[in-house]
Amino acid sequence: MADPTHCQLALEPAVRDSARQRLASVRGHVEGIVRMLERDDVYCVDVLRQLKAVDGALAKVGDAVLRSHLHHHVTNAQARGDADEIVGELMEILKYR
Amino acid sequence: MADPTHCQLALEPAVRDSARQRLASVRGHVEGIVRMLERDDVYCVDVLRQLKAVDGALAKVGDAVLRSHLHHHVTNAQARGDADEIVGELMEILKYR
Amino acid sequence: MADPTHCQLALEPAVRDSARQRLASVRGHVEGIVRMLERDDVYCVDVLRQLKAVDGALAKVGDAVLRSHLHHHVTNAQARGDADEIVGELMEILKYR
Amino acid sequence: MADPTHCQLALEPAVRDSARQRLASVRGHVEGIVRMLERDDVYCVDVLRQLKAVDGALAKVGDAVLRSHLHHHVTNAQARGDADEIVGELMEILKYR
Repeated sequence: MADPTHCQLALEPAVRDSARQRLASVRGHVEGIVRMLERDDVYCVDVLRQLKAVDGALAKVGDAVLRSHLHHHVTNAQARGDADEIVGELMEILKYR
Repeated sequence: MADPTHCQLALEPAVRDSARQRLASVRGHVEGIVRMLERDDVYCVDVLRQLKAVDGALAKVGDAVLRSHLHHHVTNAQARGDADEIVGELMEILKYR
Repeated sequence: MADPTHCQLALEPAVRDSARQRLASVRGHVEGIVRMLERDDVYCVDVLRQLKAVDGALAKVGDAVLRSHLHHHVTNAQARGDADEIVGELMEILKYR
Repeated sequence: MADPTHCQLALEPAVRDSARQRLASVRGHVEGIVRMLERDDVYCVDVLRQLKAVDGALAKVGDAVLRSHLHHHVTNAQARGDADEIVGELMEILKYR
């Protein structure tokens, strides 16, 4: 999935570990909503609240990865010579945020 | 988790089944990102793209549940006599959407 | 602009007054950003912060109008007989929120 | 409003001109909604649709300013020596987007 021209731009190990742990917890949360949806008396708004909580947890992971990317790969892109590509792919992500 | 005063307002079975299947697929997607984060050369923007895809999938599930809730429980709330509560909890969900 | 089949569903006068006043203030805020953009030393992030403040002010107006619409026109839609249309147009608004 | 340490980081003239023109048009749009709200038969959903259109127009202005900021001030922040501050203020903007 990684773009070959960017293969040297790996996510910082500490951020990667933290993101993996948080996402493992998000996976458990989603698993819980799947089970919740097996009950035939589940209330719509309870499902919506759980989806919103998952959304918030994903947003926190995304913020940490974005912050690390800005620090380690974006603020030095002109020096590295790939600023156009870096900005283009970043805008693609941020546009629909 | 269901509010006792709303225990009769269960999510429509067809929407519930579809939501459960979609969320099982979201869980698999999150699982895939967890594995992706085990690779030490994972690129930040690839992670952000995957998180965004999960976010879009969750939003579709939420839209289907919301639409069903509006149809089956909100448009008849005055007749049922719980309009204030129904609107209050709905605004709480929609506020941060 | 109003849909003829909904012409009886007018926005509540008190909410309408409050929305008009808040939007007059938003217009002033936008006017201020236009003037800010006449300065050749304006800093990008200061513009982004102002745009975000306007966005927040618009969201508050939207929340008040939405809450009023839910209370006065959505929670009685089945009794009135236009639930399908009411839900359809509401989902259209909420989808991209 | 501009941060003194950033006073050299001015918004690109072409983007500034375009943003000013678009925002002048947004101001006219908001003015139109204010007038719309003077009518006592205005329909809630028509107001919500107009607010959403304004929101979309503001987002386009914000995207153009953000893209310019990334290109001209963020991708060279390490070389300039203010990367921490640049990333911090950017995350503050993007967090609630």
